[in-house]
Amino acid sequence: MTFAFRIAATDGDARTGEIATPHGIVRTPAFMPVGTQGAMKGVHWRDVKASGADIVLGNTYHLMLRPGAERIAELGGLHRFINWPYPILTDSGGFQVMSLSELRKIDHNGVTFRSHLDGAMVALTPERAIEIQNLLGSDIAMQLDECIRLPQQRPELERAMRLSLAWAERSKRVFETAAETAGSGRALFGIVQGGDDGELRAASSRALVDIGFAGYAIGGLAVGEPQHVMLRIIETVAPLLPAHRPRYLMGVGTPDDILEAVARGIDMFDCVLPTRNGRHGLVYTRFGPINLRNARHAADPRPLDAESRCPAARDYARAYLHHLVKANEMLGAMLLSEVNLYYYQDLMAGLRAAIGAGKLAEFCAVTKEGWARGDLAARSPDGAQA
Amino acid sequence: MTFAFRIAATDGDARTGEIATPHGIVRTPAFMPVGTQGAMKGVHWRDVKASGADIVLGNTYHLMLRPGAERIAELGGLHRFINWPYPILTDSGGFQVMSLSELRKIDHNGVTFRSHLDGAMVALTPERAIEIQNLLGSDIAMQLDECIRLPQQRPELERAMRLSLAWAERSKRVFETAAETAGSGRALFGIVQGGDDGELRAASSRALVDIGFAGYAIGGLAVGEPQHVMLRIIETVAPLLPAHRPRYLMGVGTPDDILEAVARGIDMFDCVLPTRNGRHGLVYTRFGPINLRNARHAADPRPLDAESRCPAARDYARAYLHHLVKANEMLGAMLLSEVNLYYYQDLMAGLRAAIGAGKLAEFCAVTKEGWARGDLAARSPDGAQA
Repeated sequence: MTFAFRIAATDGDARTGEIATPHGIVRTPAFMPVGTQGAMKGVHWRDVKASGADIVLGNTYHLMLRPGAERIAELGGLHRFINWPYPILTDSGGFQVMSLSELRKIDHNGVTFRSHLDGAMVALTPERAIEIQNLLGSDIAMQLDECIRLPQQRPELERAMRLSLAWAERSKRVFETAAETAGSGRALFGIVQGGDDGELRAASSRALVDIGFAGYAIGGLAVGEPQHVMLRIIETVAPLLPAHRPRYLMGVGTPDDILEAVARGIDMFDCVLPTRNGRHGLVYTRFGPINLRNARHAADPRPLDAESRCPAARDYARAYLHHLVKANEMLGAMLLSEVNLYYYQDLMAGLRAAIGAGKLAEFCAVTKEGWARGDLAARSPDGAQA
Repeated sequence: MTFAFRIAATDGDARTGEIATPHGIVRTPAFMPVGTQGAMKGVHWRDVKASGADIVLGNTYHLMLRPGAERIAELGGLHRFINWPYPILTDSGGFQVMSLSELRKIDHNGVTFRSHLDGAMVALTPERAIEIQNLLGSDIAMQLDECIRLPQQRPELERAMRLSLAWAERSKRVFETAAETAGSGRALFGIVQGGDDGELRAASSRALVDIGFAGYAIGGLAVGEPQHVMLRIIETVAPLLPAHRPRYLMGVGTPDDILEAVARGIDMFDCVLPTRNGRHGLVYTRFGPINLRNARHAADPRPLDAESRCPAARDYARAYLHHLVKANEMLGAMLLSEVNLYYYQDLMAGLRAAIGAGKLAEFCAVTKEGWARGDLAARSPDGAQA
């Protein structure tokens, strides 16, 4: 199967459809759980699939350092290495170079950094980032970009945006000429940069569209800025992108971020929140976020959500989940990460169905009302309200 | 269902049969994985069951301290709390009091210790150990005993053995008079003590049989003594125990320990090795133990054991498992613990079938030959022998 995007229905600016990839269909809007180092933290791959995920994200930065892209290629590519025969998107490594490594030197050619694992100096250029992703064999590859922290002065934002554009062009050139690309059906996405500056974002968008990509990502957000800034940037960028290409908001976000971004025309998301928060005892539910560390759950025999499709949310007492979290049992992290992966996927399924039925506003309102009502009233085992 | 033991076949001193319990049948010889704090470290309960485990062990010491036996009883008992509706054996807490807590004071009445969690002083008597296990609702309860380290002088071994006998008598009295016992079908096991002293072990066995228990455990072994000492004690004790009662070798052991003990008439085992070693990258296989940290696996595309019934042993490259272990990914601990739980259960199934067919010696010889041959020759992805 070759990369293609088909929009089945729209509702306002929101769209629902399907992305075809060499490893299968991705239903959009789609949430991609993050399998950082070739593993989803605390969750078996079979449960990632069972949660409803069509596609996962792999981190080029982590995989290039360990076990190495050439090693993974020798072993048959990333899909085979991790035993996930479904679609995979890989990022370019740029974001983690900025956030994890030390001693970064950036110039027009690329970035040189010191590995956080063994201190080795590593060079990453737009060309090498594509080569690595070709070796991994991901269905969707991302251009190398420069991601900078906010707030930032405009000249610095503009410098990074222009550099990312130059790298976009080089990425596309090498991606299209690589032997691994020909006939593979794999796709390359460009990344809009420009920080919180609408003019720079617009210029970046237009220039990227001129270069032409199979899909467009909005990068450099979810780096600590307020939600309204993120939404304003989406409102600036989305209308400038071609309607028939998928739009991917990188590194976002909370369930509320996702609702708001989908309503503004975003098709794809990735975020570590479901697994990271699950490991720390926090779950997302239709009652809003619930912290299982809280003593209110210590004697509560009820499941997290009796109506959930997720076995972990349905088959265990809150008191048990609380106990596992307090006792630092791996099973706590495992079950709560699963709860979150299911909740995110159920949210995406709800969004897709709502857009298909032309009822997105209603779905978002009902969902937010559920979050606002909050969790069930506390209860102890004898049934008394606490 | 009420507790009962039926021997279906014998082969030399070895026996195979079934223990009936209120929560179902346990096929013997049986291996009980250890769910220390109400969780199997790194393994979903559904996978514990799928591995072939009929029964698991819960630790009274951990559960009494957190979340507390009364709390678990309020929540419907241990089976319901952990959502494992199959047989459970609980130990008495004595072993962990010795190994984990500080400031132990032992007298004829019981043991007082400082909790390793919050420093609180806690008293454990034979009567309280039974009360806790009644609250947990385990299918098989264990008497409180005093477990001491080896080597030890005979007077000290004898003192601890006599104390354990006195506690055995008190345990039986309170177990039989407790309301929770009547009509429950639950069973209490006595524990043979006496260290590495055959005479003391024999005296302990005879006195316990005079008191009369539903089953008999051999405690105080697997504490660092050589295997031949453990086997000598089994050879002393087993013939003194009634043939129609299950015999449980506590805290044992390696696959080889289990083969040798089964051949000497042991029916039940528990050990943390499968999960603890799995978390540290070591797996048990029909090729013997394999350390996935070893660089020989880094580029090996083969599964751990292509013929295994275990998905984790069959569906992932050794190179991937090596990567997960090196990257400290939770999924590594999860998959390798699963590999070990399956291997132990497959070993028990093999032992049961062999005893049933009168071919135990052959089964043990073939199994040990497999271990002695060792792992597959190293191989790299291009198929070359390294």
